[in-house]
Amino acid sequence: MLNRVRSAVAHLVSSGGTSSQRSKSPDLPNATSAPPAAQETPKTSREKPGNQVGAPQKTAETTVSFSRPTFLQLSPGGLRRADDHAGRAVQSPPDTGRRLPWSTGYAEVINAGKSRHNEDQACCEVVYVESRRSRSVTGVSREPSHNQGFCFYYWGLFDGHAGGGAAEMASRLLHRHIREQLKDLVEILKDPLPPPLCLPSTPETPGVSSPSQLVSPQSCWSPQKEVTHDSLVVGAIENAFHLMDEQMARERRGHQVEGGCCALVVLYLLGKMYVANAGDSRAIIVRNGEIIPMSREFTPETERQRLQLLGFLKPELLGSEFTHLEFPRRVQPKELGQRMLYRDQNMTGWAYKKIEVEDLRFPLVCGEGKKARVMATIGVTRGLGDHNLKVCSSTLPIKPFLSCFPEVRVYDLTQYEHCPDDVLVLGTDGLWDVTNDSEVAATVDRVLSSYEPNDPSRYTALAQALVLGARGIPRDRGWRLPNNKLGSGDDISVFVIPLGGPGSSYS
Amino acid sequence: MLNRVRSAVAHLVSSGGTSSQRSKSPDLPNATSAPPAAQETPKTSREKPGNQVGAPQKTAETTVSFSRPTFLQLSPGGLRRADDHAGRAVQSPPDTGRRLPWSTGYAEVINAGKSRHNEDQACCEVVYVESRRSRSVTGVSREPSHNQGFCFYYWGLFDGHAGGGAAEMASRLLHRHIREQLKDLVEILKDPLPPPLCLPSTPETPGVSSPSQLVSPQSCWSPQKEVTHDSLVVGAIENAFHLMDEQMARERRGHQVEGGCCALVVLYLLGKMYVANAGDSRAIIVRNGEIIPMSREFTPETERQRLQLLGFLKPELLGSEFTHLEFPRRVQPKELGQRMLYRDQNMTGWAYKKIEVEDLRFPLVCGEGKKARVMATIGVTRGLGDHNLKVCSSTLPIKPFLSCFPEVRVYDLTQYEHCPDDVLVLGTDGLWDVTNDSEVAATVDRVLSSYEPNDPSRYTALAQALVLGARGIPRDRGWRLPNNKLGSGDDISVFVIPLGGPGSSYS
Repeated sequence: MLNRVRSAVAHLVSSGGTSSQRSKSPDLPNATSAPPAAQETPKTSREKPGNQVGAPQKTAETTVSFSRPTFLQLSPGGLRRADDHAGRAVQSPPDTGRRLPWSTGYAEVINAGKSRHNEDQACCEVVYVESRRSRSVTGVSREPSHNQGFCFYYWGLFDGHAGGGAAEMASRLLHRHIREQLKDLVEILKDPLPPPLCLPSTPETPGVSSPSQLVSPQSCWSPQKEVTHDSLVVGAIENAFHLMDEQMARERRGHQVEGGCCALVVLYLLGKMYVANAGDSRAIIVRNGEIIPMSREFTPETERQRLQLLGFLKPELLGSEFTHLEFPRRVQPKELGQRMLYRDQNMTGWAYKKIEVEDLRFPLVCGEGKKARVMATIGVTRGLGDHNLKVCSSTLPIKPFLSCFPEVRVYDLTQYEHCPDDVLVLGTDGLWDVTNDSEVAATVDRVLSSYEPNDPSRYTALAQALVLGARGIPRDRGWRLPNNKLGSGDDISVFVIPLGGPGSSYS
Repeated sequence: MLNRVRSAVAHLVSSGGTSSQRSKSPDLPNATSAPPAAQETPKTSREKPGNQVGAPQKTAETTVSFSRPTFLQLSPGGLRRADDHAGRAVQSPPDTGRRLPWSTGYAEVINAGKSRHNEDQACCEVVYVESRRSRSVTGVSREPSHNQGFCFYYWGLFDGHAGGGAAEMASRLLHRHIREQLKDLVEILKDPLPPPLCLPSTPETPGVSSPSQLVSPQSCWSPQKEVTHDSLVVGAIENAFHLMDEQMARERRGHQVEGGCCALVVLYLLGKMYVANAGDSRAIIVRNGEIIPMSREFTPETERQRLQLLGFLKPELLGSEFTHLEFPRRVQPKELGQRMLYRDQNMTGWAYKKIEVEDLRFPLVCGEGKKARVMATIGVTRGLGDHNLKVCSSTLPIKPFLSCFPEVRVYDLTQYEHCPDDVLVLGTDGLWDVTNDSEVAATVDRVLSSYEPNDPSRYTALAQALVLGARGIPRDRGWRLPNNKLGSGDDISVFVIPLGGPGSSYS
């Protein structure tokens, strides 16, 4: 497969040249690479070039320097309408095309002008994972067959900032990094026995030849932890995020990977949903009216102590400009010697301290709510990219304070009999800035109850209602909600994944 | 007051001399100091020498080198019985004496032989906090009066390890450190207005003289966070733990402060309960049969990622002996080049990695459950003391990995009408190792329902039942529970604090 992907890359790359540095994982395409050949993803209903391939789209329509998810099937005219800040038309996959897997609903709208293009990106795929063993015996790739691998269903929302490059790259490649990580685990995940703690060296490593691929747990003599199948999938997702971030670091110059992005992705694999979040998007399950949070947000406020600890342990990361202490407001030079409330990396409460000269530095973490910032610059503390991000008017890098690792929550679909009204809702912060969990649950109830349970368009209608409800309507020189408060001026993207609907053939 | 305490110290110190280094807080007694004079704690029902004063007790009875809480009022014979590993008699305050505040129930039992003495300690006090302002105007102490200060109710459990010194010292002094921290806050906490973010310099600092003690929040021009009264109390408790730990570090040589201790303390102050936990003791509220967790345990398992991050950022703390990576079992030299499951500081899941030479080092965190250890040595990751703790057969200190900071949870007593059966249960791990929250709640229901609601002895009976239920009875060469499983061989200490009982005059 390695050669096949390399050929495809060579064939499809249209401009900009291949990256001077190769991806760490040998099978992984670099930023300009193509989607896998058809036989590689036999169950894929939507894996087509376009969302995955930036460069070919550029070639076809050189005036358009941005992309929207392929599954929207936008014409050039549609793409222009989707890019119109004045109209802010809600976009969804066309009724006429093939539906997303599980009849997933999707809707998005561009921001009200805060950035030139919609910096959110989305991806919805069925990804086939071929076992690395299928070609490991001889070292030569064999044709994969169904009984050698498995599929996972995949949904991803990527909320970009400071440019759309990182979000676009993540939407094209993160699921492939996940696939690469899972390739080693195919036999292990399909085996009901506990995962082996130790495996023989990879076939590429000379000098070790074990007749059995797996060292059984029984062969271990020392006390040992039992590791679950779930935790291997979680580890695979975590490492995939890390490798995606490393790839962005390597290829950022060649491919203009601007800015960074939050990533919220969901895998359905062998009966379980894995919800991985790095950033301030949010996932909730609405099940029989009950709200089950499936993520939490990572912001300067929620990660304050982690950030402060890093600044305390590595003061060189703060330069001479920042202090790791938090103050409830900026300290004034005239207040030297007075006592100000502060918190350090160990505290959740506040106490008074005498103000010293170093306290006049700018605090590493400041502000509240949507105005909270790390180093006065960025309002989200996990995600992908941002390798070039510097403090304003300074050379101090911010990336060391950002984490690319998601928190992963697991939901066992088999533990509950889901009805067609039970859904997993994913939304970028454009949704959640103006809508809370309860309001979303109320909209779920209102919209789904007005459609027949077996109408597959109901989830798209729900996604549209959620986006519209957060965007509002133009009135009084702004986008306003029915209560006359301002609607969200941000990009808004929403997936609605039915957990027990007509499309849920969980094979 | 400063001079009065110093005089008392000079008067009462019996042996060992005063510490060569003074406490950081000028008003704080050092390890051998006396309890405050009577007028300092006008509401104190139980603040007597003995629990607070180690040295005088030694003088009175030189054969006894250990102490039990004063409120047990143990005679020399009683002290010997409490120290008997064979009988393991449950100890409670006598029925005949004055009850603990709020009719608090208490019971304890010594371990089954794991250490020479009972290394748990307990403290229950009513502590008067005099405002520092009452003597700040002229710099001379004035007689405190009620309207200048307030009282807090205080309960503390201290579970010692590697010696009883740290637990004993903490039981005598931690509440005084808390009192010191609160002295600056008396006016602020009594004032319904939000706390001022900035205060003028302390009177001792020359050069600043503000007619008003407080700089009102309105005078701040920049965006600012609102800080609650609660969070000031939380900050005071956090800093008190830190100062207690620093005092142990300073005085450990002079006063043989051996080992370390977990600390679980509760403050009742101005309508709210503050539950602060550093270690593996546990607090739960049982309210109308419902269980409300009021703490979480800090162990190598629950704090794995914090520990690993520190080892990763400061590899010098690991020496050449440890790796910050976790493996599910010990890696064998013959497995070099093979692939083993691992987790690093960023991961909650597991993945395979090729085993390299450094992976043969001992993992910083290993083991499961009660056998989990940091550096193969200690099974608890927060608490006080342990300044001399080294890795076995090594000079590597473990203290850098331990945190003295508690997690503090706040419970507003005024938000719910409590009945006499609603209680806050505090227990050292001797209780929780063999009893879970539901079993404790069932015992609460069973015991309290067999007593009249206004019988103040019911909470002691409940504490005794909980301790007995965890200890078991001697049978088959061991202490066994009714289900024939082994009872706890550890020291067991339990407070039962009624939240709406006859003793709850929350003044």
